[in-house]
Amino acid sequence: MAEIHEECGVFGIWCPDEREVAQLAYYGLVALQHRGQESAGIAVNRDRTITVHRDIGSVHEVFDRATVENLGPGTMACGHVRYSTSGGVTRENAQPMLVKHVKGQLAICHNGNLVNSFDLRRKLELSGCIFHSTSDTEVIAYIITRERLHSGAIEEAVARAMDTLEGAYSLVIMSPSKLIACRDPYGFRPLCYGMTEDGCIVFASESCALDAIGATFVRDLLPGEIVIADKKGVRSDRRHCGVEGKDVSRCIFEYIYFSRPDSVVDGVSVHEFRVGAGRALAREYPADADIVVGVPDSGLDAATGFAEESGIPFALGLIKNKYIGRTFIAPTQKERTDLVRMKLNAIRPVIEGKRVVLVDDSIVRGTTSARIIRLVRGAGAKEVHMRISSPPFLNPCYYGTDIDSREHLIACRHSVPEIAKIIGADSLGYLSVEAAEQLAGYVSPDDWTAPDGRKLGFGCCSACFNGRYPTTVPDEYSKENLEK
Amino acid sequence: MAEIHEECGVFGIWCPDEREVAQLAYYGLVALQHRGQESAGIAVNRDRTITVHRDIGSVHEVFDRATVENLGPGTMACGHVRYSTSGGVTRENAQPMLVKHVKGQLAICHNGNLVNSFDLRRKLELSGCIFHSTSDTEVIAYIITRERLHSGAIEEAVARAMDTLEGAYSLVIMSPSKLIACRDPYGFRPLCYGMTEDGCIVFASESCALDAIGATFVRDLLPGEIVIADKKGVRSDRRHCGVEGKDVSRCIFEYIYFSRPDSVVDGVSVHEFRVGAGRALAREYPADADIVVGVPDSGLDAATGFAEESGIPFALGLIKNKYIGRTFIAPTQKERTDLVRMKLNAIRPVIEGKRVVLVDDSIVRGTTSARIIRLVRGAGAKEVHMRISSPPFLNPCYYGTDIDSREHLIACRHSVPEIAKIIGADSLGYLSVEAAEQLAGYVSPDDWTAPDGRKLGFGCCSACFNGRYPTTVPDEYSKENLEK
Amino acid sequence: MAEIHEECGVFGIWCPDEREVAQLAYYGLVALQHRGQESAGIAVNRDRTITVHRDIGSVHEVFDRATVENLGPGTMACGHVRYSTSGGVTRENAQPMLVKHVKGQLAICHNGNLVNSFDLRRKLELSGCIFHSTSDTEVIAYIITRERLHSGAIEEAVARAMDTLEGAYSLVIMSPSKLIACRDPYGFRPLCYGMTEDGCIVFASESCALDAIGATFVRDLLPGEIVIADKKGVRSDRRHCGVEGKDVSRCIFEYIYFSRPDSVVDGVSVHEFRVGAGRALAREYPADADIVVGVPDSGLDAATGFAEESGIPFALGLIKNKYIGRTFIAPTQKERTDLVRMKLNAIRPVIEGKRVVLVDDSIVRGTTSARIIRLVRGAGAKEVHMRISSPPFLNPCYYGTDIDSREHLIACRHSVPEIAKIIGADSLGYLSVEAAEQLAGYVSPDDWTAPDGRKLGFGCCSACFNGRYPTTVPDEYSKENLEK
Amino acid sequence: MAEIHEECGVFGIWCPDEREVAQLAYYGLVALQHRGQESAGIAVNRDRTITVHRDIGSVHEVFDRATVENLGPGTMACGHVRYSTSGGVTRENAQPMLVKHVKGQLAICHNGNLVNSFDLRRKLELSGCIFHSTSDTEVIAYIITRERLHSGAIEEAVARAMDTLEGAYSLVIMSPSKLIACRDPYGFRPLCYGMTEDGCIVFASESCALDAIGATFVRDLLPGEIVIADKKGVRSDRRHCGVEGKDVSRCIFEYIYFSRPDSVVDGVSVHEFRVGAGRALAREYPADADIVVGVPDSGLDAATGFAEESGIPFALGLIKNKYIGRTFIAPTQKERTDLVRMKLNAIRPVIEGKRVVLVDDSIVRGTTSARIIRLVRGAGAKEVHMRISSPPFLNPCYYGTDIDSREHLIACRHSVPEIAKIIGADSLGYLSVEAAEQLAGYVSPDDWTAPDGRKLGFGCCSACFNGRYPTTVPDEYSKENLEK
Repeated sequence: MAEIHEECGVFGIWCPDEREVAQLAYYGLVALQHRGQESAGIAVNRDRTITVHRDIGSVHEVFDRATVENLGPGTMACGHVRYSTSGGVTRENAQPMLVKHVKGQLAICHNGNLVNSFDLRRKLELSGCIFHSTSDTEVIAYIITRERLHSGAIEEAVARAMDTLEGAYSLVIMSPSKLIACRDPYGFRPLCYGMTEDGCIVFASESCALDAIGATFVRDLLPGEIVIADKKGVRSDRRHCGVEGKDVSRCIFEYIYFSRPDSVVDGVSVHEFRVGAGRALAREYPADADIVVGVPDSGLDAATGFAEESGIPFALGLIKNKYIGRTFIAPTQKERTDLVRMKLNAIRPVIEGKRVVLVDDSIVRGTTSARIIRLVRGAGAKEVHMRISSPPFLNPCYYGTDIDSREHLIACRHSVPEIAKIIGADSLGYLSVEAAEQLAGYVSPDDWTAPDGRKLGFGCCSACFNGRYPTTVPDEYSKENLEK
Repeated sequence: MAEIHEECGVFGIWCPDEREVAQLAYYGLVALQHRGQESAGIAVNRDRTITVHRDIGSVHEVFDRATVENLGPGTMACGHVRYSTSGGVTRENAQPMLVKHVKGQLAICHNGNLVNSFDLRRKLELSGCIFHSTSDTEVIAYIITRERLHSGAIEEAVARAMDTLEGAYSLVIMSPSKLIACRDPYGFRPLCYGMTEDGCIVFASESCALDAIGATFVRDLLPGEIVIADKKGVRSDRRHCGVEGKDVSRCIFEYIYFSRPDSVVDGVSVHEFRVGAGRALAREYPADADIVVGVPDSGLDAATGFAEESGIPFALGLIKNKYIGRTFIAPTQKERTDLVRMKLNAIRPVIEGKRVVLVDDSIVRGTTSARIIRLVRGAGAKEVHMRISSPPFLNPCYYGTDIDSREHLIACRHSVPEIAKIIGADSLGYLSVEAAEQLAGYVSPDDWTAPDGRKLGFGCCSACFNGRYPTTVPDEYSKENLEK
Repeated sequence: MAEIHEECGVFGIWCPDEREVAQLAYYGLVALQHRGQESAGIAVNRDRTITVHRDIGSVHEVFDRATVENLGPGTMACGHVRYSTSGGVTRENAQPMLVKHVKGQLAICHNGNLVNSFDLRRKLELSGCIFHSTSDTEVIAYIITRERLHSGAIEEAVARAMDTLEGAYSLVIMSPSKLIACRDPYGFRPLCYGMTEDGCIVFASESCALDAIGATFVRDLLPGEIVIADKKGVRSDRRHCGVEGKDVSRCIFEYIYFSRPDSVVDGVSVHEFRVGAGRALAREYPADADIVVGVPDSGLDAATGFAEESGIPFALGLIKNKYIGRTFIAPTQKERTDLVRMKLNAIRPVIEGKRVVLVDDSIVRGTTSARIIRLVRGAGAKEVHMRISSPPFLNPCYYGTDIDSREHLIACRHSVPEIAKIIGADSLGYLSVEAAEQLAGYVSPDDWTAPDGRKLGFGCCSACFNGRYPTTVPDEYSKENLEK
Repeated sequence: MAEIHEECGVFGIWCPDEREVAQLAYYGLVALQHRGQESAGIAVNRDRTITVHRDIGSVHEVFDRATVENLGPGTMACGHVRYSTSGGVTRENAQPMLVKHVKGQLAICHNGNLVNSFDLRRKLELSGCIFHSTSDTEVIAYIITRERLHSGAIEEAVARAMDTLEGAYSLVIMSPSKLIACRDPYGFRPLCYGMTEDGCIVFASESCALDAIGATFVRDLLPGEIVIADKKGVRSDRRHCGVEGKDVSRCIFEYIYFSRPDSVVDGVSVHEFRVGAGRALAREYPADADIVVGVPDSGLDAATGFAEESGIPFALGLIKNKYIGRTFIAPTQKERTDLVRMKLNAIRPVIEGKRVVLVDDSIVRGTTSARIIRLVRGAGAKEVHMRISSPPFLNPCYYGTDIDSREHLIACRHSVPEIAKIIGADSLGYLSVEAAEQLAGYVSPDDWTAPDGRKLGFGCCSACFNGRYPTTVPDEYSKENLEK
C-alpha cells in the first residue's frame, strides 16, 4: 500500500489512415490510469490540425462518450495522465500541452522531471519567453521550438533539444505530420512501442497499454533513443544512446510499485520482479510463521514469492474495498476515524490464531503500516512478521517520484529494530538494494550490448535508497523555486 | 467475474444522542457499495424531523463532503445503495424512500423483492392509493402505513405488515423516534446488527459495514425477526420466526458472489465458503495441471482453496485494471474491441507453457468465460481447465437477483461438455449444489435450535440452480407487469 | 420592482397525432418563466405512457437540448414552472407531479393554493394515505384518484373532486388519453386555451404562451369550468360555474404585477390595465413635475399612462441591468453593498435638475423604494414624487401569492405621509382599490352574462388590499402546519 | 435588436490595502456583462502572487459564491468578459491571461483587435516564441515581456510596446505591484477610471461599472494614454497621445449599440446620443403616423427621441421576454419556429389600427427586421414606418466588432427602397453618418484641446458605414490566417 506517487503516463498512436484514434488513446489511458489520476488529456491530429481536450480528474472524470467523440477521427493521437508533484493541480498544467510555434502546432506529453528545469526556465525568461504553466513541459516545448528554428525537421529539433535537457523525460510529441517518442539517455522512465495488426504504431509508458488496444509489443525505446513514426515508416535516432557520462539509470521503483504487474519494462516482468523480491526476502529474512499474507494490491505478488520460497502457505487474509475511491473523512471525524480500516479489512477466520508474515511494498512514514498491523492483530494474529519488498527510503527523488521529505521518512530517523517497534511488528525485514538491482536486471557495461552494437551498461537508479544520483541534483534553493 | 447483480445494501444507525450520523452512514454505504452502484441515499433524523438526500449514481457520485455535511448531525440515520432490476434507474426509485403518513415521517430502506408485489399494488390502487415510484418499497410503505392506523406503535405495524408481505425483504425503517430492522421469515437477504463502543446500534446488510465504522458485530437477525432500537434500548420481536410453511431459505449466491469476503453471513464466513468451494472443486473435478489461477477478484478465494486441496501451486496469473470503472466503448469500435481485455490482462511469464486450472465464480452466457480463456491461451497456456465455484444457473430468481433470462443462460441450452467446447476449455467442472449448500451451513430442522429455543431448519435457497422455490412464484403475466 | 411572488405557471398541449410536444411545452414554459424560476418540468405522453423530467431551477437550467429531445415525441405534454412558497424548494415538490393510480398514470400541474389543504391532508392520512411531497398538488392527486374509483371517466373524477377542493387552483391534468384543464369557481388564477393551425389544443396560464408557439387564443376558461381535449374534440363541463356562494374573484395582482403585459387575462389587457392605472394615478394624485420616470420593467407601462394623462413628458431615466440574474453579495460586503444599485442605474442627463414623478408598481417593506429614490436624487433630481400603481398591501394572501408578513409590510405600520417620509419622497400616492377593480373589469352579477347564458358576477379578489376574502381562510395553526 | 457583437469588457481595481477585490471585480463584470457573455475571468493579486479563475460562460456561470471567495482577498484585481470573434470560444482564450515572465507574473485583460496581429505573431514565432492561445492578448503579452527585458519598469515596457502594437486595444495589466491601464492612440475602445471613497483606483470599459461598485467617475483615459496605479499614487504617461498620423477614432458603434445607456463615454452620454439619434431621424425622415414604438431594449431611447421631436405619442407596443436567455430551437422545429416571436411580442391593444413608426438600432441581414415588422402587422398595425438609428452597414470592422461578411449585409446588396420592400416596411429611413458623428461629439483638430494642452482632433471611426479606416487594414490573406 505504497504512498509514493509518480507523475505521469504517456501514450501515442500513429495510423496510416484516419480512424477512431481518440477512442484508442482513451483505452490506452485507462490502462495507464494507475500512473496518475489528477489530470488527463487527449490530443487528436486530423488534417494536420490538432485538437485537445484535457482537464483535472481521472480519465473517467475528464472523458465521457461525447467528449471522446467530439475529438473526432484522425490519423494520430497522444494522451497523458498525470499525478502532479511539481506544478500543482491546475488546468493549465494538464497535458497534452498544445502550442503553436513557427512551424505549426505541437502537442507534447511528458513523464519525468528535469533537474535543470529552473536554470532553463530562467534563461528562457531572460530571452523574453513567457510561461503559462509551472510545468517542465512548457520548458521542453520552448527548447524544442527554439531548435526547430534552425532545424530542417522536427525530429532534428527534438534531438538537439536533448543536448540541453537534463534529467528524467519520456516524451511523446505530435507535430502536424509526425509522431515522435523519445527517452532520456538515463532511461529513468519507461517507454515502449508496439504495432497493431492494421499498421498503427503505438507508444506507451508501459506495455499493458499496448495489450489494452490489442497492439503487439515491439520493444522498449533505448535510453536516449528517438523513434519517429510518419508516412515513411518508423525510424530511430540513437545519437544520444550510450553517451559518455550518462549511465543507464532505470528507476527501480517502477518495478517495486509504479508499473502494473502485467507490464514488462526493459525486458523485466514487473510481476516476476515482485515475486522475486518476495523470494529474496524469504531468503534474507526468513520467518517462523503459519501463513503469508500480502497487503493488497501491491504486496500480493511478493507475498506469493515469499510463500513459495519459504514453503509457508499463502493466504488471502486482507481484503481491499475496491470502491473506496474518493471517500472523504469529515474534519470532525478525523481523530477517531481510520481510513485504513475502510480501505482494508482482515479476514478473521484466515488470521485468527496464526503467526502471520505480512508482506507490503514499502514503508514511508510508518503510520499506515502501524494501522495495518493493528488490523491484523485485531483479527487475532498471534505474531506479525513484516517483510517489505523494497529497501528503506532515505533520499529525495529528483526524477519525478514524489517521495516524502526526509523529516517524515521513518527510515531516516530510526533503525530497523526501532521501526519494527514503532509499527508494532514482531520482526521486520527490508529487501536489500543489491537484491532489488539484480532483479531489475542490472548489467554492468562489460556485460551488455545494445541492439545497435554498442557496449553499454544497463543500470538502475536506486538513489532514493542509496543516494547515488546519476545526475547532478538541483540545490535546495532552485528546487524550491522550481516548485513554486 | 460474475455478471449477476443484486439489488441493494441497507444500513441504519441509532445513537443515544446527536452526532455525525450522516458521516457514519456514508462510511457504511461505502463498505456496502459492492451491493449496488446505481443509486445511493442517506436519511438523517434530527429533532424528530427526517431529511433525505439520494440520487442516481455510486456513493461517491451522490455524496461529497458538502452533501453529507448539509444533512447535519442527528440521532439516527439510514442509508441505501441500489442495483436496480425492477423499477428502472430513476430518481424516484432511489432510496431511502421518505414518506409522510398520519403519524409523521417514515424513511424506508429495502433489500429484496416481493413475490406478491403486483397483487398488493393492484389492491392498494383499487382502494385509492397513488404511486410515485415503481419500486416494491412504496408498496411496503403503504402496507405499514395502513397497519399503523390500527396499531399503537410503529413496530406493531411492521409486524402486522409482515403478514401481508411475501418474498424477500430485509428492511431498515426509521420513524421519528425509532429505528427498526426486519428480515423476512425465509431470511433470503442477510441483515445483521452491531454496537459501537459509545452505545450506538447499527444495522447493516453485511458485517463488513460494521467493521468499517468500528462497530462490534452482535449477531445476524433471525429470519422473520424484528429488532427495534430506541431510547428504551434494543428489543426483538420474533413472532414471525419459525413460521409453519416458511422454511429458512438463505440466498446461496450471497456466499458465491454478492457478499464481501470479509463478511460473515449467518455464521458462515464468505471467504471460508469460497475457499471451501475451491477445495470441493478440487475433490469433485481434479485436474492434472501446473498452476491454479483465479479470475480476479471473485475467483481468487476459490483458487487458493483449489490450490491447497490439490497441491498445485497457486499463482497470480491474471491482473485486473482497478480503474476500469465506467469505461465505455464507442459503437463504431464495438465489434473489434474486447472490454474483457481492458479489464483483465494475463501475466505471460506466469502462464506461458503451463497447464492452467482457471477458477471463476460463475458462467452466465459463456461469452466472458470464452474471452478469458482466449486471453490465457494467448499468454501461452498449454491447457486450460476451467473450474466454476458455483453450480450451473438454470432458473430465474424472484427474490432480488438479476439472473439473465433462460434463453441466454448457457447452462439451459447446453451440456457441460458442450459448454467446455464453446468457451474453449480443455475441461470444465461446476461445484455441486450439495457441496454449495453444505458450505453455506445448511441445517435440517432436526439439527438446529434458534437462539430463542425453537427448533428450526436453517436452509438455503438454491432455486437458481435446482428450481426449488421456497415460495409461490409470480406467474409470467404479473411479473411482466410488475417490471413495467 | 415588485417583491411579491406568485407560485406557478401551467401549460398543456394535446395534438391529433404524434409530434415534438416536449419542444412546444418548452417554448410555452419559457414564455411563462416570469411566473416562477425555482423549478420547472415537462411531462410527455406517448403511446399512453407518460415520462417526466423536472428539477430545481429555471427552464434553462432544467432543460437543455438533450433533455428535451430525450422526452421524445408524443401526442400530449404538460409543463410547469414554480415559484415555491408552500412546500419548500425540493425536487419532490417540482411539477408536473406524475403518479400511478388504478386507472394508469396521471400528470398534474397546479397553480394556486388550497385553503382546506391541511384538513384534506389530515383526512387522507387518517385513511392510510402516504405523502411524498409537501405540496397541495399531491392532495389534489389523491382526491381525484379517489373519485376516479367511482367515476366512469377521469373528467368526471375531476368534476367531483372540485366539490372537495376549496381555494385557488388552475390545473392541467394529463391522463393516458386525455388532457384536462380546470379552473376553480372563484377564478383566482388565470387559465386560457387556444388552438394551433394544425389542430392542437393548448392550455396556458397566460395568452403570451399561446403567442409563443403560434397558437391562436380561443378564450379564457370560465371560473369553475373544466375543458377536456381528446380524440373526440374539445368539451366543456360547467357544472361548477356560477355556484352559489362562490363569487368570481380574479386575483387583481395578476394585472398589477404577475402577468406579462402582452397577455390578455379574462378579457383585460395587462398592458392596458397598467397604462390605465398610471392614468388614474395622474388624476387621483397629480404632481407638478418635469418628467415621468417608470421603474423598469414593471413600472414603465403605468409611467406612460401617467405621462399621457398629465401631459408631463415620459422619459427613460432608469436603466436595468438585464444580466443581473443570480448575482450574489458576499456576507462580508452586505452592509455596504446595495444590490438595487447593481440592478438599476439612473441616467443623470435625463434626471439632473428635474422634478421627477417616479412610478412603481408596489411598495412592500419600503427599503427598495427608499434606495431607488436615493439613486434618483443622487442623479440630481430636484424633487421626487412617488406614484404607486397599486393600493397599499395590508393583508396576507391565502391563494398563492407570497406577500410578506404583516409586521414587515410598511403600510400596516405607517400612514401614507409617514411612508413618504421614510422612503424619502416629496409626495406619495397609491392607486385606489376602486380604480384598480374598475380597470380589472369588475362587473357585478347584475351586469354580466356568462358565455353559457347564466347571470354571474365577474369580480376581483382584492383581499391583500381590503381584507375581503372570498373564502373562509385557514386559521393560523393549520396554516403553519400546512407550510411545514 | 442589434446582431452586432463586440468582443470584451475590462475592469481593474487597485486598493491601498487588502480587501475583497474579487467581489468588487465580480460586481464590475456583472455591470459590463452586456459587452460579452462567452467567457469571464478574474485575477487577484495578493502578496505579489496572482491567482486567476476564468472559464467559458457568463459571469454567473463562471462564478458562484465559492469561486469568488476562493480567490481570496487582495490588493488588486482585474477582470474580463468576452464575446469572442477572433480566437474561438475555448478555455485557453478566456481572460485575464496570466503569464510568468522574467520579472514575475503578469495578468492582462484586453478589449479590441490588433490589425498587425498576424505579422507580430509571425515575427515572434520566427524568434522562437510558442503560443498557447489564438488571441491577440498573447501577442501583447509577448511584446510587453520583450520590452520589459530592457526597461526599468513595467509601465515603461507597456509604453514601448505601444510603438509596436497597431489597432484597437484598451488594456488593463496587473503586475505584482502595479495596475496599469492603457488605451490605443486612436481611442477605438472606451476606457475610463474612477475612485472609491476609501481610496481605490478603478479602471473600467464603461462608467456604469464604476457606478455599480459606488466609485466616482474621474475621467476617460485619453486616446494613447497610460495610467499607472500603485503605492505612489496615480500617474499618467501621455507620450502616445496626439501622435502624428493617428487621429482619434472612437468607435461610433459604442454609442449606437455596445455601451449601456447609463454610461458616459468620452464625455457623451450614450442615452443622450440615442435620444438624439431618434430626434435626428424624425427630422431627416419624418413620418405621418399615430404612435412611435421602439424595439426593446436598444431601440427604446431613440424611439422616445423620435416621439419628442415629431410630437407623435410614444408607446410601449413591443414587449421582450427577459427570460429568453439560452432558449434553443430543435433542428426539427427550425423551419417553422420563429425565435423572434419568442423574444418579442406585440401588444395588440396598443398597435391595432395604428400607423406605427418602428424604431430599431440597426439592420444587418434584414431577416430579423422582417420578422418584427410581420409581428407588428400581425397585431393590427395599418402602416409600419421603419426608422433605424444608425447608418447602413457596408464594410467589415477590423477593430473588434463582429460585423457580418459583406455578402450577408443587406445594405451592400440593396438600395434603401429595396430593403424597405424586403423587410415589408411602408417606408424606411437610416440615420446619416454626419448626424451620428455630430452626436458622438466629433471635433476637428482645430476645435479641441486635450487636457494636457495639445491640440488634437477628437474624431470617430465610422468605417463600417463609410469605409474610411483610420489604420491600414490587414489584407484578406493575413486576416484569414489570423482567424484560424
